[in-house]
Amino acid sequence: MRRFIDLADCSREQVRALLALARALEHEPQPTALAGKVLGLLFMNPSLRTLASFQAAMARLGGSSFVISPGSGSWQLEQRSGIVMDGAAAEHVREGLPVLASYCDALGIRQFAEGKDLDADLADARFLAMAALVDKPLINLESAATHPCQALADWKTLDELEVAQHGKLVLAWAYHPRALPLAVPAAVLQMAALRGMQVTVLRPEGFALPGAIMQKARDAAAHTGGHVRETADRHEALADADVLYVKEWASTACYGDAAADAAARESHRDWCVSEQWFEGARRDCRLMHCLPVRRNVAIREELLDGSRAIVRRQAYNRLPVQMAVLYRLLKQTSEARA
Amino acid sequence: MRRFIDLADCSREQVRALLALARALEHEPQPTALAGKVLGLLFMNPSLRTLASFQAAMARLGGSSFVISPGSGSWQLEQRSGIVMDGAAAEHVREGLPVLASYCDALGIRQFAEGKDLDADLADARFLAMAALVDKPLINLESAATHPCQALADWKTLDELEVAQHGKLVLAWAYHPRALPLAVPAAVLQMAALRGMQVTVLRPEGFALPGAIMQKARDAAAHTGGHVRETADRHEALADADVLYVKEWASTACYGDAAADAAARESHRDWCVSEQWFEGARRDCRLMHCLPVRRNVAIREELLDGSRAIVRRQAYNRLPVQMAVLYRLLKQTSEARA
Amino acid sequence: MRRFIDLADCSREQVRALLALARALEHEPQPTALAGKVLGLLFMNPSLRTLASFQAAMARLGGSSFVISPGSGSWQLEQRSGIVMDGAAAEHVREGLPVLASYCDALGIRQFAEGKDLDADLADARFLAMAALVDKPLINLESAATHPCQALADWKTLDELEVAQHGKLVLAWAYHPRALPLAVPAAVLQMAALRGMQVTVLRPEGFALPGAIMQKARDAAAHTGGHVRETADRHEALADADVLYVKEWASTACYGDAAADAAARESHRDWCVSEQWFEGARRDCRLMHCLPVRRNVAIREELLDGSRAIVRRQAYNRLPVQMAVLYRLLKQTSEARA
Repeated sequence: MRRFIDLADCSREQVRALLALARALEHEPQPTALAGKVLGLLFMNPSLRTLASFQAAMARLGGSSFVISPGSGSWQLEQRSGIVMDGAAAEHVREGLPVLASYCDALGIRQFAEGKDLDADLADARFLAMAALVDKPLINLESAATHPCQALADWKTLDELEVAQHGKLVLAWAYHPRALPLAVPAAVLQMAALRGMQVTVLRPEGFALPGAIMQKARDAAAHTGGHVRETADRHEALADADVLYVKEWASTACYGDAAADAAARESHRDWCVSEQWFEGARRDCRLMHCLPVRRNVAIREELLDGSRAIVRRQAYNRLPVQMAVLYRLLKQTSEARA
Repeated sequence: MRRFIDLADCSREQVRALLALARALEHEPQPTALAGKVLGLLFMNPSLRTLASFQAAMARLGGSSFVISPGSGSWQLEQRSGIVMDGAAAEHVREGLPVLASYCDALGIRQFAEGKDLDADLADARFLAMAALVDKPLINLESAATHPCQALADWKTLDELEVAQHGKLVLAWAYHPRALPLAVPAAVLQMAALRGMQVTVLRPEGFALPGAIMQKARDAAAHTGGHVRETADRHEALADADVLYVKEWASTACYGDAAADAAARESHRDWCVSEQWFEGARRDCRLMHCLPVRRNVAIREELLDGSRAIVRRQAYNRLPVQMAVLYRLLKQTSEARA
Repeated sequence: MRRFIDLADCSREQVRALLALARALEHEPQPTALAGKVLGLLFMNPSLRTLASFQAAMARLGGSSFVISPGSGSWQLEQRSGIVMDGAAAEHVREGLPVLASYCDALGIRQFAEGKDLDADLADARFLAMAALVDKPLINLESAATHPCQALADWKTLDELEVAQHGKLVLAWAYHPRALPLAVPAAVLQMAALRGMQVTVLRPEGFALPGAIMQKARDAAAHTGGHVRETADRHEALADADVLYVKEWASTACYGDAAADAAARESHRDWCVSEQWFEGARRDCRLMHCLPVRRNVAIREELLDGSRAIVRRQAYNRLPVQMAVLYRLLKQTSEARA
């Protein structure tokens, strides 16, 4: 494996092998496996889990990492092509990225969606332009289009809780005061479809996931016995659900139009998940979220503190799955490539 | 040892054992003792010594650390209960803290006093609420109520300079342009009392340390032959003193009232420690301060540059005492538990 | 070696030995050479290459590092002597620096020029005042007067590209929207003169490098067969050049006068390096720059993306030369001192 950019680049068997490696590393530490290896982490956007868990993952394998945060300790990086750089950015990614890559054995990049042009964000234009400048193993720490480390951690979590391979997962939109990106819903949908699950995307009108995201997941489901559908009917969606995966995202009907988006979201402030949502679901239906989550805005706090919530387990699982990704990318022995 | 939160949780013998371990680690490096171990450091407030010395301490023992600074690279963390999170904070500590704890083997948390409600700050309400969310070894990097790592480093410094166990230590208030917390004076008072010293708290009217802090120190002194008293009379306080420990803190008479506090401090701008303060003290009376210190505001610079000052030694001692704390919390061998 | 502050402190033979060590470490990793060693990095100014490459260099040698950035996570540090510290800075370097030094085995400091007083900046007054407070091995991460790590990396790059020892290097001024320091042009000039090159400083009137910088380089050239001259004539300067090293710097004629400096620079916006500059140069004349560089402001982007540019190689070489510096400063075996 040379790059970990999109879960859709992996077959179900490859994902299963990665998860088996994650479990192995979880139970049998290898504190010198990556001795002398260096992971570079470039954060164009803030982070808590990704920032902490990748540094911890390298450390547990005996390696090291450095963090670059343009605008905070390092200058801003320009990404636009052909521009006369007389503004705030002191350096262009065409210089900065190959240089950072030359200092490390693998590079991780976080670059959220611009939120202006839906097609550009779906095509992951900025992330892939940056990826093209890197000649080292590369990890997507969340791009405009997807968040594969989150998806991998979620899959491991579903396995641990023995959610059936063909179980029913509802990916539900929730309210948020800002227009959030589509990366996580896209990644979760892809993950669940690739796992073989019956997936229902539950969202109000104007918040349907783009056709390209839905079709990509359907293509995966076609090979795994999964199924992907969507609805705006909460009751119908939750019937017999095994898992409710909550996520906030921007309006796709008026993507990039800040005022219209705010108005569209405002009218759905009642999409704050409460216990009532679970009527009709399976009794032990789980609540998932990638975090961070705004309590009593996206999800009621009693749910987050209750037994349905497995959000902390999801977050913890970022650590072992990323150890597995790093091990695959950086460990040179034949044993590792087995 | 599972937690290092308050020096008052330790007996004098336990402290002495920790300091013996600190000296041992200082003289005989153990560069692989904590190989593969990870320390998480959560800074809700800025830092220089704590930030540098904890990372250095882990590194010297072969371990690693990661730093999370909400508001700088990571989003702000909400701490209030039951709130509708539609403001600036993207995540609640109820999610964030267990997640960070799950990535590391021990977690350190810095959380200064809010400075609004004296009882809440004395009870260390916010720190203890966060501590309750952490199921890993935990270190107090300075809370509203105390700063045990500083106190431990100060004790080691007193030992090194052969200040008598029952020697006389004056804890003196000094002027500062802002209302500073009570954590350090509380920790130093407790440390000196537990060490068995004759302690005089020297402060102007309106700046008396709260009764709870005084009583807690007196309780410790009762078992160690120490003594705790207070005065506003500089000359009386310093008579025959072995050590003058200077610290700035907010008015306790008008705690939380910013305007009244500023006025109260303003009238004591002359509480800037100079050589004259040492008239009547022992000839080799030492000057201590936890740093950072504002030169010519809290202490005259000629004193800080002179032979009385042992402030750099105090700061250096943060490193070996924290190595001892980390070793106790993280080293699993029976030898370590001896 | 105890300090690495100025390339002018080294003989040509010492530099060659450092570069030989850099090549050795590049080809034969020593992942445990600095186990248990800690590098402190103090950044008074932002950084990308230096921040990443020093952390990576320590990690590749088995050591660790911590980063302190006053004003970002740590409080501001006062540098002026004798001041009453009632302003923004909470701590003075007279306390802060010895403390940081006491936590590490070597300390690196970045401190750009103030840009007010040319003589003070040329004398490196602030950096040397800080250096005097540090009793550990010390590395200059770029001061007002010089940037020795950059110069060392550039020398290695010239060697790799087989640029002749006595080859012709043009150090050319280019436009920048801000008044930048003299550290890099001074360091590059010194490096090229010490290497024995024929150096031409090409700059418009008002941007001549100060006499002290020119003379210091001429002194070095006198021992190495090199030569140093200056001109404002682009065509003459570039004739038969092997290397064009581009750098932006402030007006020296009106140093410290922001308005006059801006006006002086504004009239030279056409000093944006393009392919036309290379008329008369050797066919394979190389383009160098220390980065960050503003595309289409200082250098045309087609040049930066073209085959003349070796700027990424220069930046990469920061890693191995800094590994050599760290190895020399920190490795205790007699083998290392050979």
